Order: sequence, then structure tokens, then C-alpha cells
Amino acid sequence: MADRAFPHRHLLGIEPLDADDLRQILDLATAFFEVGERPIKKVPTLRGRTVINLFFESSTRTRTSFELAAKRLSADAVNISGSSSSTTKGETLLDTAANLMAMAPDAIVVRHAFAGAPHQMARHIDAAIINAGDGQHEHPTQALLDAATIRRHHPKAIAAGGDLRGLEVAIVGDLAHSRVARSNLLCLTRLGARVRLCAPWTLQPLGLLRLGGDVTAEAARVCTRLDDALDGADVVMMLRVQGERTIGEAPRFPNTREYSRYYGLSARTLARARPDAIVMHPGPINRGVELAPDVADGPRAVILDQVAWGVAVRMAVLYLLAGGRGSEPSA
Amino acid sequence: MADRAFPHRHLLGIEPLDADDLRQILDLATAFFEVGERPIKKVPTLRGRTVINLFFESSTRTRTSFELAAKRLSADAVNISGSSSSTTKGETLLDTAANLMAMAPDAIVVRHAFAGAPHQMARHIDAAIINAGDGQHEHPTQALLDAATIRRHHPKAIAAGGDLRGLEVAIVGDLAHSRVARSNLLCLTRLGARVRLCAPWTLQPLGLLRLGGDVTAEAARVCTRLDDALDGADVVMMLRVQGERTIGEAPRFPNTREYSRYYGLSARTLARARPDAIVMHPGPINRGVELAPDVADGPRAVILDQVAWGVAVRMAVLYLLAGGRGSEPSA
Amino acid sequence: MADRAFPHRHLLGIEPLDADDLRQILDLATAFFEVGERPIKKVPTLRGRTVINLFFESSTRTRTSFELAAKRLSADAVNISGSSSSTTKGETLLDTAANLMAMAPDAIVVRHAFAGAPHQMARHIDAAIINAGDGQHEHPTQALLDAATIRRHHPKAIAAGGDLRGLEVAIVGDLAHSRVARSNLLCLTRLGARVRLCAPWTLQPLGLLRLGGDVTAEAARVCTRLDDALDGADVVMMLRVQGERTIGEAPRFPNTREYSRYYGLSARTLARARPDAIVMHPGPINRGVELAPDVADGPRAVILDQVAWGVAVRMAVLYLLAGGRGSEPSA
Repeated sequence: MADRAFPHRHLLGIEPLDADDLRQILDLATAFFEVGERPIKKVPTLRGRTVINLFFESSTRTRTSFELAAKRLSADAVNISGSSSSTTKGETLLDTAANLMAMAPDAIVVRHAFAGAPHQMARHIDAAIINAGDGQHEHPTQALLDAATIRRHHPKAIAAGGDLRGLEVAIVGDLAHSRVARSNLLCLTRLGARVRLCAPWTLQPLGLLRLGGDVTAEAARVCTRLDDALDGADVVMMLRVQGERTIGEAPRFPNTREYSRYYGLSARTLARARPDAIVMHPGPINRGVELAPDVADGPRAVILDQVAWGVAVRMAVLYLLAGGRGSEPSA
Repeated sequence: MADRAFPHRHLLGIEPLDADDLRQILDLATAFFEVGERPIKKVPTLRGRTVINLFFESSTRTRTSFELAAKRLSADAVNISGSSSSTTKGETLLDTAANLMAMAPDAIVVRHAFAGAPHQMARHIDAAIINAGDGQHEHPTQALLDAATIRRHHPKAIAAGGDLRGLEVAIVGDLAHSRVARSNLLCLTRLGARVRLCAPWTLQPLGLLRLGGDVTAEAARVCTRLDDALDGADVVMMLRVQGERTIGEAPRFPNTREYSRYYGLSARTLARARPDAIVMHPGPINRGVELAPDVADGPRAVILDQVAWGVAVRMAVLYLLAGGRGSEPSA
Repeated sequence: MADRAFPHRHLLGIEPLDADDLRQILDLATAFFEVGERPIKKVPTLRGRTVINLFFESSTRTRTSFELAAKRLSADAVNISGSSSSTTKGETLLDTAANLMAMAPDAIVVRHAFAGAPHQMARHIDAAIINAGDGQHEHPTQALLDAATIRRHHPKAIAAGGDLRGLEVAIVGDLAHSRVARSNLLCLTRLGARVRLCAPWTLQPLGLLRLGGDVTAEAARVCTRLDDALDGADVVMMLRVQGERTIGEAPRFPNTREYSRYYGLSARTLARARPDAIVMHPGPINRGVELAPDVADGPRAVILDQVAWGVAVRMAVLYLLAGGRGSEPSA
């Protein structure tokens, strides 16, 4: 698998990737994870390559993760931030992308408020485009780091050598607006896990088709009661309640206290999941809203492991797409 | 030429440079341009040197170009942004410069809203000062990258081994406020090209002397009709219509639609130039205002080549001024 | 001393350090100072180590100094800025710190508006925490760079091989709100200097205990008249008048002109100090308020030397705490 040529030039979403593609990235991430545990956390793999982090939406966490991934591969990393509005005022997204391309980057990591922005860039320029979150559409490296975390932290997955088949994963929260939910649904079902999607009906998408076209009813089901999602779950993935995505819309739930009462994960509700269930969250956590502090800090939480795997997964993606295939991660 | 010692410590403008100086930078840029086309876009030339990008006016494009130039030369690049107002509130420009100097940078790239700010810094500190745009005064690396682009993209210049003598260059737009126009006028005429400057009379400077004191009437002429500028031109350089420089002043033209009608470059107006004429723009483009989209994206446009040459020219300038003369660009 | 294992994992303040600790850092800074004077200002000491600059309060000067220090040690430096308010809105400081820790940095340099923020981080995470200023509490690298500057610039200290014992240091200005004053008081008295603290009574702390618990009345005394502070002083350290720290409070002095008249250092008032006295300021200077321009630019001022020593002291601190003890600074 490691020697297989990766058959994609971009990482626009999980949607275009099959199970072999996903496993190739995840296996490579395992090799790079160990780099982060060494005193000298650096390999020369991407020396002389240029990675541009183009963040139209600010995200310190994701930008830092990509920047560290690039630097630990010895690439030159350049950060560009800007609001979508300032771009559309002066210059089209494609003009911005074409101008950056003229500076010969090997990869452009892009976060944008509009779904499809990375795809539009990929159609017109030569650098590898890596989607770091596009509107309510996809956030593929988040799904990959989540899968990597489950592979290394759930006892069943560890025992199965990283195989996720048969695992029951509950994803709880604002499904209607979450690119994390969408990318995870696609990634987990393609790797053989079964997904329960749980949200109040006001935060549910209009049918599973809105989330992922080829996801079967057997692989994923939707529910509105938290207990139905948690019963017998191996993995509980809580989504962040993020008011900012619903600005200008009617409120979807009365208030965060009410939300927390019905959809928050506490030690009591977690007890419905399997005894070896792990708890995940993409961060940043609203403590006491979607996640009780004692659960967030408890032994079942693998939330900080997700962050650590984030750097490793992004190193793997940059390695595959930014042209460093000639040398070994262990070099 | 390559072995000649560059006789300047700073790059404050095109004004202090003679034709030999300009050609030395441009020849060196040709060598560095090829670095950007390699898989490993990095040379060790400026390893251990420090380049500070001090941008009092924000300019993602220029800052990114200088940052990449520094990193591809293996220099350490540090970005500092700030508004001029916050500096004048707490600290004088010279105190800021002296403090940065105490950290021992080899070069400081400075953009500032006030004409002459880089010159003031150069009089007081030891690092090489590189002007990245000072008010309405000069923007020398823009003129250098424009000249480099013409040398490599106009058929006549290519045939003449990079010699620009006899080329007719039309510069169209807000001449009164444009540092790009001023630096280009000086650079192009010193390299032997002839320049036609075209603008409505409300956007013309008060006489050529305002633009460049030693420019002769033979080398440059001013006109108000676009056709007069384009007839027989080899190069058409469109300036950006930038409202921001005229804030607080009376409007100089009725509206952008009116401006576009009389001074915008379209396929129809471009037909007046020579058949092999190339079209340039310093970016970012106001599509449909100074430049029609089909021209901007057409085969005559070399606008993205300008961006690519921008990195190469800035590598050449940093190489000459930041102390790396001991090693070869091809090293 | 150079081979002594540094007995601290963090640099949270001067308070936990004894004279041997202080001298170890200062001796090492002397070795690193020379790196900044070489053409190639870089040593491979911290190659592959990660330093995160986490600045909740903006400070271009201090951030740039730490960033250059990290890069000259060949570490990977990542900058994160953010206001305290945005953090407390979405995420606790500890969650932010834990998330960064999951990305395996070797050191986190933190500036925060709240006293004790770095200590809180240090209790919960594994990376070395370096306090770059916490509220009105401490700013240890400022005190260290001040001590380093005195050691190399005061004739008595030079003659004594860097020994500060017996030196009389006047610190003048807003003692009540100054983390610089507090850290300097602790650092200087532990190195054997005597300190005179001078401020109008409205800007004095409630007793010396507020400044430093173990400082004896012999080592430090407080006065309200500038002349009492300056008479026979070897070092005059002027603090910055910073209105921003007293927002929401009643004004502490009538206006800056009045302040300057009674507490500003001019050539006239400086004459009361010893003939070989040196003048210091942590910057940025309010020219004409706490410091007359002719004194700031005069031969007695070592203000820019302080900045230069800042990079060297921060290199020493990063070297000791970020894991590079295996190799020599001169490597």
C-alpha cells in the first residue's frame, strides 16, 4: 500500500476517495505520527517545496496544524489570511488562485466560507489543492484524523489491525450545517463502520442524500433521540454547537441549556454506549453545552489524540500531494 | 556582469540606478527564475541571513512574493505588519527601524504609505533597505519585474537578447497617483524603451518632471486619448483604478463605467497596438474596469508571468543586497 | 556553569530563579550574542524542535525577538495571536494549551493579559512554558536582557567580569502596573545590585511586598522624588508611561506634560547620576514624556543594546528549555 501511487492530485473531499485511498493516507499517517514523538521532529521529505496556507476563514487550530505538518516535512510554509468579502471586492477567487499559482507553490491549503471554492480552484490551477474546510460541505482532513484516531484508540480497531468494519459510530449535533459530520459519514462508512446520526429535527439535513449520496440505509441511520444514538455505540463523536453558522436564520433550538439537556454528552448518557466506547470532539469544545467537562477530561475522551493525529494526517496528505514521493518518511 | 559588485547598498527606487545596475538585477533574475521551475525550489545562498518584511500598508501579494523569495534563498524571513498610524502614535518610524536594526537583520523590506519612508530609514540604519512601495513615489521591484517580463515575453526583446531599446510601451491609467507608473517610466526609459503615458487630464501629474526628472521628451510623451497611446505600441501596461488613493479628494472621473469606456482595454482597443503587443497589469485586476476579462485571460496577456518574475526579481535583489554574494545562485 | 544542568523546566518569572540560575542564562546569552554578529546568524542547535509564540496581547517587538531567537537556533517557529476575550468566549486557556500541546511543541512562549496565565499552563502541559509578559506580574526575559546589557555596558560591571554587586540602579515610572519593574527588581537584587524605585505615590505599589517578597529594605528602597532616585545612580532605567494599563481607573497623574516635568529624564536631571551612568528603557519610548530625545539618542543610552541582548537572552532561554542541551552554541 505504501508504494502504491496515490491516484489523486488534490484532496477536495472524502467523496472522491475509495477505501484504498483512505487506508493509504491513514497508513502513511501512522509512519509520520512517530516523527512527532522524536526529539528532532523533522524529515527532509519536502525540502524546497512550497505550501501556501490560504485561510479565508480564520482557524488558528487548523492553520497551525497544517503549518507544523509542512515545516516538519521541511517544506517552506507561507500563511495568507483574508476574508472572502475583501477578495470578492477586489479580485475573484480564481484571480487570487492564479496569482498564487504563478509563484509556483506545490500545494495550496484552502479554507473558504463557500462550499466548492477549493474545487473551483482545482479546476484552474496546477498546484495540489487541499480542502481545509469549505462552507458546510467537506473538511476531509478532519475526517481522516478522526478515522486515524479511532484506528489507534478503539480496542476493537486496534485488535483488528486498524480495521473499522463493524464499529458503531454515533455522530451527535448540528448535522444540517456540519462539514465535519458530512466528511466523517463518508469516510467512516467507506471504511466499513456504521454511523448513527443524531440531531434535533431542526438540525437535521433534508435526507441522507444531502449528506452523502452513496451512503446506504444499512450503513447510516438518522435519529432524534440521543439514547437511540448512544445505545451500544463504540464511538461517540460530539459536534460543536456553533451559532455562527446560523446567523440570519431562525434559531434551531431554544438555548444552549435546553440543547445540553437533550443532546449533551454526560457521564450519565455516556453509560448507554459500550463500556469501551471512546469520546471524540473536533474542538474547540463548548464545555457544559455539547460535552460535560468530566467527560471531556475523562479516560474515555481521545480529543487531544485527535489533535495529535491531525498533524500526522496532514503530513501524510502533504507528502502524497506536494511531490515528496521520492523519499521515505523515516529518512 | 554577474561578477560585477553591485554599487548600491539599498534599493530605494529606480531613480538611483543606471542601465548597468538594472541589467545586472535582470540578468540575475533570469538565473533565479529557473530555481522556481525546479522540484526543489531552494538554494542555500542566504542561509543564516535575516530578512524582515515590514509592511505598514497591507499587501498580501507583494509580501508573499518577498517572503517566498527570501525562503527560496534559505534566509530566515520574519513578517511584521502595522498601520502607519499605530506607529506614529507610540513610536517614530526611526525608533521602529532602529529597534529592528538592533536585532541584526541583513535586509528590511518596507512598504509605507508615506513617500520617502524607506529613504529615511536608509539614512539611519545599516541593514539593506528595500522599498516595496512608498506612497505615490516608487515601487522599484514592480518596475524590475515588469522589465524582466518584457525581456522574456516580447518577441522583439527575446530576439534582441533582452534588449528593450526601441520598444514602445504604453502605460495607461492613474498616472498622478501611481508609484508603479513612476518606477516603470524611469526603468523602461533607462533601458532604452520609449514610453507613452496616457490618462485623463484629471489623473495626469503636473508635468513629466513630477514623474522622473531626467526623462527626455523623446523618451516619453503624455497623451489623453487611449488611441494615441495604443497606436503601434509593443507593450500595453494597464494601471489599476484604485479609489483608495484619492480618499478625501474630489473624484477624478465620473464613475468606473465611464472610465472603462474611454480608458479600458478591450479586444477592440487592443487592435490598435502592434499584432505582437503584450498586455500587462500590476494586479489585482478590476475586471471590466481597466481591463476586459477576455483580454486579461487572452493570449496576449503576460500578467501571471509578471507575478512569476516578481519572485525571481526579488530573489535577485535580496541576493545582491542581503550579503549572499559569496555563493552562486545555481549552487 | 555552562555544563550545569538548568534546574527548571519553565521560565515563568524571575521569582523562582536564584543567582546561579540567572548567571547561567546570562553567561549563555553572551555566547549566543556573538551568533548575531556573524554573517551566518544561525546555529543548528534546536533543529527539528518546535517553538510556538502564543501572544494573547500583541507585541510586535517581543514576538519578533523570540521568533528570531528560535529561527537562529534552527527551530521551527509558529506564531499564534489572539485576544484573551476570544479565547475565553470559545475555549478555556487550558483547552487552548492542551490542544497546542497535542501538536508536540517543545516550548510555548506566552504573553497574556492575566497574571498567572503561564503558570496555569505550566501546571497542566509538558512543553516548556516561557512567560513573555503576564499582566502586571512578570516579564522575565526583559529583566534578563536588562541585566545582560548592564553586565556588558556599565564600566564597573565590565571591570568586575559581569558582576553587578554594589551597582545602584534607579527604576523610575509606573511601578504599580509594571511587570518590567517587578522582574527587574527581583533579578537585580538577586545579582547583588541595589535598586531605587521611584514613582509618584499614586503609581507606587502597596508596599515592596507587592513587588517582590524576599527583597530586603537594604537591597531596595522606594522614593517619590526623582532626584533621590538619581543621586549617585550607576544605572537609570526609565519605564514607559502606558495609559492602556489603567483603563477604567481614575487617572494617576494630571497629564503627560506634568508627569514629564517631575519624572522625565533630561540631560539636566541625568546630571545627578554618576558620570558613567547608563540610561535604559524597555521601549517603545514616549519621546519627550519619560525620556528626553537628546538623552534617548545620547552616548549614555544603551536602549538599542537592550534590544540586541533581547535576542541573545531569548536564544539562551530557548536553548536551556527547549531541549537543545546536547549541542554547543558555537556548533
